[in-house]
Amino acid sequence: MNTIGNALKLTVFGESHSAAIGCVIDGLPAGFKMDLDAIRFELKRRAPRSSPESTERNEDDDFEILSGLLSGRTTGSALAVVFRNKDAVSGDYAFDFARPSHADLPAFIKYRGYNDRRGGGAFSGRLTAPTVFAGAVCKQLLNKTGIEVFSHIASVGGIADERFDPLIKEKPMLDPMFPLLDTGLRDRMTGLFTELRESGDSTGGTVECAVLGMPAGIGEPLFGSLESAISNIVFAVPGVHAIEFGAGFALSGMLGSEANDPILESGRTLTNNSGGVNGGLSNGMPLIFRAAFRPVPSIARPQRSVTLGTLEECEAVIPGRHDACILPRGCAVIEAAAAVAVYDLLLMNRGTYGE
Amino acid sequence: MNTIGNALKLTVFGESHSAAIGCVIDGLPAGFKMDLDAIRFELKRRAPRSSPESTERNEDDDFEILSGLLSGRTTGSALAVVFRNKDAVSGDYAFDFARPSHADLPAFIKYRGYNDRRGGGAFSGRLTAPTVFAGAVCKQLLNKTGIEVFSHIASVGGIADERFDPLIKEKPMLDPMFPLLDTGLRDRMTGLFTELRESGDSTGGTVECAVLGMPAGIGEPLFGSLESAISNIVFAVPGVHAIEFGAGFALSGMLGSEANDPILESGRTLTNNSGGVNGGLSNGMPLIFRAAFRPVPSIARPQRSVTLGTLEECEAVIPGRHDACILPRGCAVIEAAAAVAVYDLLLMNRGTYGE
Amino acid sequence: MNTIGNALKLTVFGESHSAAIGCVIDGLPAGFKMDLDAIRFELKRRAPRSSPESTERNEDDDFEILSGLLSGRTTGSALAVVFRNKDAVSGDYAFDFARPSHADLPAFIKYRGYNDRRGGGAFSGRLTAPTVFAGAVCKQLLNKTGIEVFSHIASVGGIADERFDPLIKEKPMLDPMFPLLDTGLRDRMTGLFTELRESGDSTGGTVECAVLGMPAGIGEPLFGSLESAISNIVFAVPGVHAIEFGAGFALSGMLGSEANDPILESGRTLTNNSGGVNGGLSNGMPLIFRAAFRPVPSIARPQRSVTLGTLEECEAVIPGRHDACILPRGCAVIEAAAAVAVYDLLLMNRGTYGE
Amino acid sequence: MNTIGNALKLTVFGESHSAAIGCVIDGLPAGFKMDLDAIRFELKRRAPRSSPESTERNEDDDFEILSGLLSGRTTGSALAVVFRNKDAVSGDYAFDFARPSHADLPAFIKYRGYNDRRGGGAFSGRLTAPTVFAGAVCKQLLNKTGIEVFSHIASVGGIADERFDPLIKEKPMLDPMFPLLDTGLRDRMTGLFTELRESGDSTGGTVECAVLGMPAGIGEPLFGSLESAISNIVFAVPGVHAIEFGAGFALSGMLGSEANDPILESGRTLTNNSGGVNGGLSNGMPLIFRAAFRPVPSIARPQRSVTLGTLEECEAVIPGRHDACILPRGCAVIEAAAAVAVYDLLLMNRGTYGE
Repeated sequence: MNTIGNALKLTVFGESHSAAIGCVIDGLPAGFKMDLDAIRFELKRRAPRSSPESTERNEDDDFEILSGLLSGRTTGSALAVVFRNKDAVSGDYAFDFARPSHADLPAFIKYRGYNDRRGGGAFSGRLTAPTVFAGAVCKQLLNKTGIEVFSHIASVGGIADERFDPLIKEKPMLDPMFPLLDTGLRDRMTGLFTELRESGDSTGGTVECAVLGMPAGIGEPLFGSLESAISNIVFAVPGVHAIEFGAGFALSGMLGSEANDPILESGRTLTNNSGGVNGGLSNGMPLIFRAAFRPVPSIARPQRSVTLGTLEECEAVIPGRHDACILPRGCAVIEAAAAVAVYDLLLMNRGTYGE
Repeated sequence: MNTIGNALKLTVFGESHSAAIGCVIDGLPAGFKMDLDAIRFELKRRAPRSSPESTERNEDDDFEILSGLLSGRTTGSALAVVFRNKDAVSGDYAFDFARPSHADLPAFIKYRGYNDRRGGGAFSGRLTAPTVFAGAVCKQLLNKTGIEVFSHIASVGGIADERFDPLIKEKPMLDPMFPLLDTGLRDRMTGLFTELRESGDSTGGTVECAVLGMPAGIGEPLFGSLESAISNIVFAVPGVHAIEFGAGFALSGMLGSEANDPILESGRTLTNNSGGVNGGLSNGMPLIFRAAFRPVPSIARPQRSVTLGTLEECEAVIPGRHDACILPRGCAVIEAAAAVAVYDLLLMNRGTYGE
Repeated sequence: MNTIGNALKLTVFGESHSAAIGCVIDGLPAGFKMDLDAIRFELKRRAPRSSPESTERNEDDDFEILSGLLSGRTTGSALAVVFRNKDAVSGDYAFDFARPSHADLPAFIKYRGYNDRRGGGAFSGRLTAPTVFAGAVCKQLLNKTGIEVFSHIASVGGIADERFDPLIKEKPMLDPMFPLLDTGLRDRMTGLFTELRESGDSTGGTVECAVLGMPAGIGEPLFGSLESAISNIVFAVPGVHAIEFGAGFALSGMLGSEANDPILESGRTLTNNSGGVNGGLSNGMPLIFRAAFRPVPSIARPQRSVTLGTLEECEAVIPGRHDACILPRGCAVIEAAAAVAVYDLLLMNRGTYGE
Repeated sequence: MNTIGNALKLTVFGESHSAAIGCVIDGLPAGFKMDLDAIRFELKRRAPRSSPESTERNEDDDFEILSGLLSGRTTGSALAVVFRNKDAVSGDYAFDFARPSHADLPAFIKYRGYNDRRGGGAFSGRLTAPTVFAGAVCKQLLNKTGIEVFSHIASVGGIADERFDPLIKEKPMLDPMFPLLDTGLRDRMTGLFTELRESGDSTGGTVECAVLGMPAGIGEPLFGSLESAISNIVFAVPGVHAIEFGAGFALSGMLGSEANDPILESGRTLTNNSGGVNGGLSNGMPLIFRAAFRPVPSIARPQRSVTLGTLEECEAVIPGRHDACILPRGCAVIEAAAAVAVYDLLLMNRGTYGE
């Protein structure tokens, strides 16, 4: 199940400490001039940072394109890209216990102990790098048709940013490395991160993502709904535990007369509680969704756990440095997931129903 | 995109007022003795009811199995089932405007007006009947391996039921036709429904679903995560706008030290904020998720909208009788979606990794 | 594995004596005016005939379209169609031995005896009716883009028709019910059929199929080659044991300087040993392939075999009437298989690379 | 369409002169001890040789495993492997004409000139190396269950080897680098190769492949037939134009009473005209098929062709050294294709129907 998509197929591979990770993207049109700097920038947004204020160490995210690109343009063949795992220090992972709320124990059982546990193996957040790469490519292709994908930190711990105006007409000014609508919150958030790092703890957060410029009618009935396609990839992102479209969970407490979006002469709607999607199809309004990340489960504090093979009780102390929060890095990943899903559905629609 | 699944493939077809709707289920083991009454009961749980208190009119949900079953046992071939659309009164849908927050307008654009709009066509809630059928079959197969799928109404409008104990060990007593943990809420809910029907309005609600007895290690990395598989089908259910696993959105506001589930000697966890899934794999604890339904968008009140072809403003008055709330019917659908997704992943795991 | 295709998905279901057989076709464009008479005619070409000279009894091939068609036009939703198995006389199949060269024994083992054996169950030639239906729909859609699919009986037993001119520019005159280039062979062939029926024997034959009007570049590299796509469906047809494209097996004995097709100014080729496909892609020349059917394995003569459960030796006498040869009926099936494969690849190409 | 398979998914990527080619194999069981030397040997069998007698230059087929393998055992995650294209001399391909019977012209049209034409790009025979790798892995896994895959050169030009005994019980002695049943033919074949190289010409040939030890019941009805699965991959091999199972095309000229395989007490058959497969399912007898390769289309002689962009007539002289025949190299590729297809169907069968 490392492959997803129909007209555009994305195959992701690798483990945190294997020789490399990467992906194969099949179904890209030929002759597309790829902006590699834009891809590098998206990867930088995703890369671990020593601290939000300091310089990034993103050398891990150097990539090599193995096929599908010639003289800067796609060839129409599958594009393969690899990211070397050069700086991996396996010693950091020399533990034989299950890290709580990680995949360690279920993976040990599934693979009968043969899985590569170093750095979380195939379940590592590092595996999001290839997805971000693929998303960056799709973003460029979407841009050409007037579609834009962007996001902001909707919340970190208890600190909540404003929300996108559901009727948002253009991409607001957002610092791509720390996207907030209320930029005044940045100091509070980074302060919280510092505090958590000091106390050996972590926190979660939410990302709000918007896709503007979607024509109406993209998505397929039933299992090809826009929400199905997006959530399928979003839930492949480590740590995501929830997703909601438009007003989401809040819709469940509303009256129909409040929730319904009146339709105007232009076909646009007066409100956008639906988040741009009805019956699984885009309706031409901004596509808006939010995804929730759990707190980073790797914390410095000792935790109660068991050894992997024998299930003996032990105190789990996870070595190494830990992120206090997956945000703002998670914004780049969620956008990428959305871009891949949307571009695939766009191609499918074009193949069958024309443009 | 009417087909989903890998080892078990489910293909759903039909439109609300076409001759019939139905599904094809491919990948069922041979020799399985199917309990048709249990399937009929699940369909009855899903069927429209004149009112929660009255007798159901579920004649629409009579089904005919066309293949794959002989002398009450599966033959190993694709099982096809159809539900006739006998009582459809197309006159009820003799309108040429877009119903707000329905798929009418995007579908009209996608299919250039050729889609079958009667009763919502392919986007009708009626299409959930085949999914409930498939889910009922999968539930029986899961039961044989000790896995149980059930749900309750977690909320209706502003009225919230208790939640499942995240450490729930066995299925609680639940009225399948109106599943609530706090049964005292039933009167308030049905009272609200009556009120809404009188005022020509509707409301939404949430379903909480649990899967007990899952062995650890079910699910596949990345795009085959348990959450991906479940959400893919759940978002094919009309009206669902959100899903969360375990503590879900609430996790995003917690500290890692609060959110992490300490692991006990048995491999079980002390808490279950993760909702039974880590890294996309089941961890042996109860799998718990909640899905949110928007209010039924068909309401009796006049709404602002446009004509379908010419996008002229008009007052939309939707004829016919309308449900005040998709619940409790939605419970049967969400359980079915979970059962199909889980059974497919169970077969995949068995094929590659043994049991 | 009852589903095939990417942009166009075909799901076939049913068993020879189940209530019905049928298929679901997903990915058809909306608004396409379907010619049902043309479909019926293709089904008539496929239907069993009491004898080649007599009137057909094709009442078995009456179909009912359950969804996806409204007022004669496709709606864009999955088109489902069923064929009732009305005249089945199960008594004819009241035997408990394995018919030699049938799927009886391997199917009995695979499904542990639970498969529906009546009339060959899921392995019956009757299952080709839905494929012919789907092929007839695809033929019409292909016709609209100037692509034509047709075939003739290339041989029956030892009697060989001429071959299509590899450079064939337009469809020759062919009797659709008994397509031969050398129509003088018909009497010899029907004479052979009569003889075989009398002697309780059967024979095989080959079909040569041509697809004209293919634009260059249809097909995908590797596993999406035109040959892969066509052979995948053709080998789903009961009794097919071989396929060759262009000069086929004969190519293996030729020199490169003989086999290569010189290219002319127009991009057309001087010869067409390649059969219209290079590297898996159409090259704009006629796509030509041949498929071989084994003799009908159901013969009237007693055969050596075993009982199904206990593998005891027995003399197998297959009751009922038997076809002496699958041809000319097989022509309709092979054309349908080609049409489905080609149309799917055409849609895929359009989605990604435009038209 | 670079991905194939269900329980085992194989994704192949790369172009002849891109940085690398490779594949991703998803669905391998964890803990399997991979014999890398055996894989290298299979790759050596496939690698270009300066002449059949001389030492091979197989440095191009050095591979690097990027993921999915740890301490010599599979981890259960996707196994990714790359082959660097180190020695490519692009100057050899500095031509702007279409090579007759190559994919040059249709690919140019499909990709509007943007495809990587160097060395045949994505249509190069070099792309078979990853398939041979995957096949070598599957062969080892099949061996563990008692299944063996092997082949021999059935013919080269007009020189025909004997055929496998259709009832073959064990793998005969075969020189893996030049597999012939009648080893006396080797000199005639290599003599022909020398002659063809001198005359600047080439020839085709056929491979006969056998799979022994298959349990009965492997394969799925309809589009998952053994023949469908095998032919789908075999036709992805450049130069293959035909395939036949069992007696193949010859079956079409036989009587039913000759062609049918009488069944013995053991369930085995007296003859094996069916080639081990009935109704798409293995029947427990040797699975035998033959594939035909066209002559290598790259020949030294000048050929009539056109320029790629402007379709102007020109004399095509293909620079570089050329193989006189794809055999014996093609044997390794055909075996690999069979192994991948069979192993995937074996996993599918196990998942749904048990072992």
